[in-house]
Amino acid sequence: MDLVERLDSGDPRALPRLLTRIENRTPEGLAALERLYPRTGHAHVVGVTGPPGSGKSTLVGVLATAARASGRRVAVVAVDPSSPLSGGAVLGDRVRMMGLHADPGVFIRSMASRGRMGGLAPAAAGVVHALDAAGFPLVLLETVGTGQDGVDIASLAQTVVVVQAPGLGDGVQAIKAGQLEIGDVLVVNKADLPGAGDLKRQLRLALPTETGPERWATPLLPTTATTGGGVDDLLAAIDAHREYLKESGNWEIRQRGAARAEVLTGLRAALERRLATLDGDQLNWLIAEAAARRRSPDAVVANLIATLDSAATGGDSVSDQRGG
Amino acid sequence: MDLVERLDSGDPRALPRLLTRIENRTPEGLAALERLYPRTGHAHVVGVTGPPGSGKSTLVGVLATAARASGRRVAVVAVDPSSPLSGGAVLGDRVRMMGLHADPGVFIRSMASRGRMGGLAPAAAGVVHALDAAGFPLVLLETVGTGQDGVDIASLAQTVVVVQAPGLGDGVQAIKAGQLEIGDVLVVNKADLPGAGDLKRQLRLALPTETGPERWATPLLPTTATTGGGVDDLLAAIDAHREYLKESGNWEIRQRGAARAEVLTGLRAALERRLATLDGDQLNWLIAEAAARRRSPDAVVANLIATLDSAATGGDSVSDQRGG
Repeated sequence: MDLVERLDSGDPRALPRLLTRIENRTPEGLAALERLYPRTGHAHVVGVTGPPGSGKSTLVGVLATAARASGRRVAVVAVDPSSPLSGGAVLGDRVRMMGLHADPGVFIRSMASRGRMGGLAPAAAGVVHALDAAGFPLVLLETVGTGQDGVDIASLAQTVVVVQAPGLGDGVQAIKAGQLEIGDVLVVNKADLPGAGDLKRQLRLALPTETGPERWATPLLPTTATTGGGVDDLLAAIDAHREYLKESGNWEIRQRGAARAEVLTGLRAALERRLATLDGDQLNWLIAEAAARRRSPDAVVANLIATLDSAATGGDSVSDQRGG
Repeated sequence: MDLVERLDSGDPRALPRLLTRIENRTPEGLAALERLYPRTGHAHVVGVTGPPGSGKSTLVGVLATAARASGRRVAVVAVDPSSPLSGGAVLGDRVRMMGLHADPGVFIRSMASRGRMGGLAPAAAGVVHALDAAGFPLVLLETVGTGQDGVDIASLAQTVVVVQAPGLGDGVQAIKAGQLEIGDVLVVNKADLPGAGDLKRQLRLALPTETGPERWATPLLPTTATTGGGVDDLLAAIDAHREYLKESGNWEIRQRGAARAEVLTGLRAALERRLATLDGDQLNWLIAEAAARRRSPDAVVANLIATLDSAATGGDSVSDQRGG
């Protein structure tokens, strides 16, 4: 039995192994993804994003617990583009703390940074598809909401929860960084801390007053993740957003948006992977030429692009034929 | 006379016009850059980077004034990857405030964001080369030091000044984001504010204690940009770093590093520009296919990459020949 067959037969070890192959884009992982993809599109993918220190990791943990209490299986994907380690470590601590690791209805996966080459977003998309195909009705996708990777990853979700908290510096800065615009639900976590009321008022002012043709009014909810305060209301708002998307026809629009984001980041990643195929000696020699001002960087780029194009379209095999 | 000839004849209107063409990568701009590039490599390019609110814009203004007082011509390039507007506006205010706009020995250019497509870093590299070729011995390159663009742009500099300030939130977070590692000179600006001493101690602890084979010990300098306090010491440290680079042979290593960064970002930008050539209708149709789960995103990406490759290697003209 291959891993997809083992997944279908209920083998609990199949899913994590499959995800590793999908993340690493091994031939087996990519082939499995091709088979699983037609089964996807049923999970509610909820992005939970916010700056470091906002408590979103703890919030995702209590959200998962609340969703389990409502009888649903839940998958959590924690993505940390900035650090190769801390995300996983924080997640591990949280899982143990909450006893979620003993519950077979909860699946938790943490994804660390794998640098720019290849990109984190395409790998995250593959993981979400596999969890969707594996039948999880709810997938919580936790990301640091800064940087391009964070935005790309949030675009995989149908519902985006933006978490803010008092005491993280200038609230206006977070607004400027485009965090709020992508949120379907806004959360002021650490609502028990001084400054939470001020932050809530600031965020309320930054929210669009005109609802326009959309019938969804972005809720702004206080939570205290460490005690679970406000988390049931947050889950209710997430579920209400799903209902709104389904009834308004926006569910399909979001899915098309997610597909667009995945295709575009996939294109970028595919082009990036080509750069890794360049010959290191040739690259270094041309860079030294540019540094010595004997060739311009633009001329070097044009030279290397021509090399890549020739390799991509089998230029080598053509010259082999001519030589043979 | 073309713009390069007008630049050489001393026409003050030639440089800003040339820079606009270089930024927009018009054929005239790219041709001018090819002619100017062999003359470059003489300017000391100093990156000044730091988070929003650190006061780096004001600091760059007083640094330019101090450098003018030492008899040098100075060019300032302010790059704001995050906002299409505020960088230029802040710069304009500052220039008027300091009277720098009346000094022909100071040239100031602000570059706003132009989205991901094409990229800001290659445009900034072209602008720096033109200013270098125009004979400015000192080019101050101001960037928000967050995100990939910020790091790319800093890599164009031989000397990187990292600006921090008290009251911007968690100092440890700035350290985690990899800001300090790229700094040759560290600055605690707003040194008159409470918390400046604490921040300086934190940064001191984060500095590498082992100097290793490098003989440059990263200085950590307090400044108060609004009053000019500490700015002469900062300029002296920047000049000392240039001397160190020249004497140690690291100047050439930095130039090769800058050329490498420019070539690699140029390659990425060239590949990104290709994405803009895709047919919108074909793209939308394939994305809808993926959203409907009839084709996988990976299959769509492979299809589009094949289309791009065919266009890049003149597949169309080949089929034209066959048809004719």
